[in-house]
Amino acid sequence: MTAPGPALTAFYELASTYSYLAVMRLQDAAARAGVTIAWRPFLLGPIFKAQGWDTSPFNLYPAKGRYMWRDMARRCAAAGLPLVPPSPFPANGLLAARAITALADDGDRPRATRALFRTAFGTGRDIADPAVVRDALDGAGLEGAALVARAADPAVKAALRAATDAAVDAGVFGAPSFVTADGELFWGDDRLEDALAWATEGALPAR
Amino acid sequence: MTAPGPALTAFYELASTYSYLAVMRLQDAAARAGVTIAWRPFLLGPIFKAQGWDTSPFNLYPAKGRYMWRDMARRCAAAGLPLVPPSPFPANGLLAARAITALADDGDRPRATRALFRTAFGTGRDIADPAVVRDALDGAGLEGAALVARAADPAVKAALRAATDAAVDAGVFGAPSFVTADGELFWGDDRLEDALAWATEGALPAR
Repeated sequence: MTAPGPALTAFYELASTYSYLAVMRLQDAAARAGVTIAWRPFLLGPIFKAQGWDTSPFNLYPAKGRYMWRDMARRCAAAGLPLVPPSPFPANGLLAARAITALADDGDRPRATRALFRTAFGTGRDIADPAVVRDALDGAGLEGAALVARAADPAVKAALRAATDAAVDAGVFGAPSFVTADGELFWGDDRLEDALAWATEGALPAR
Repeated sequence: MTAPGPALTAFYELASTYSYLAVMRLQDAAARAGVTIAWRPFLLGPIFKAQGWDTSPFNLYPAKGRYMWRDMARRCAAAGLPLVPPSPFPANGLLAARAITALADDGDRPRATRALFRTAFGTGRDIADPAVVRDALDGAGLEGAALVARAADPAVKAALRAATDAAVDAGVFGAPSFVTADGELFWGDDRLEDALAWATEGALPAR
């Protein structure tokens, strides 16, 4: 047995724009840093509801929403990622989150995650539609129909609820969020590098 | 006469934590990029009120607030900046914003800005207090008492209102924000590098 390396839990929401930016680069960035990622789809809906929001803050605050889409367009262009804003926004990501949860954390979750985010934000298709989820997973070489079926498994549903509860317990209020083994919380695609640095060094590099 | 170089307008609010991180490095970062900064203190209060908020979102949403202070502590440590959370938070930054507005944009505004932010967030003193504003400006080698007096000048008050109106017109909803000559808006200390790149290249560098 080898000792496990530094670990980082990545919480992401399937309807979250900045989660798209983060998950598409997460596996490579973590590998470069020598950090093992726990891939944790979770649901922001219950967290937003507890704050009194019934939709995304990007819809509730139009100036912030307009800015977010422009910022996403600029950053996706710089990263070479396609961007087609989904309609409706935010999508209901429950089924897609459950389908990912049905996969092994250290196996096919990264691939399934990227496929579903690329479908949601790179093509604008509605991932609330089981056929869309199935096609995205098939396209990634996974068994789409079987995973859509397994998404309804009570154990899978419970595991997704547990991931959301763990996020709340860690202080998560938005997505993506990253939590180190010593409990440090980092919020946003912008903080991925900080989170990886903390996971390996226990501190941020001096600027 | 030499042709003016690329320009960037920096909107900052004296009570804003992430504005502290940005303004302390703004002059050096802009000089390295060859960009001329228009230093624009403005007021977030009217913008927050229009969104239905009567205080900072960091107070309205406790999980977000707890995270922000921890994030600030980590990032200030990495940047070698002192951090003492002001009480009350947010401070009323009106007087300090007016005192900076009384100075020439291309003259002493950068120095006055850094002095007042360092007092507000590096010592936790309340910049709503005229004596605190005066001392901070004196400490930066400026005429504190005279600037506090000039803050009450109707032309200075009007200039600060105009800066806030200009921010709203540019789509600003938070601080710090950066606006390029071609109208691109960048929000947050995290976007300063993007803003400088856009000001000089008209695009973000590929990642």
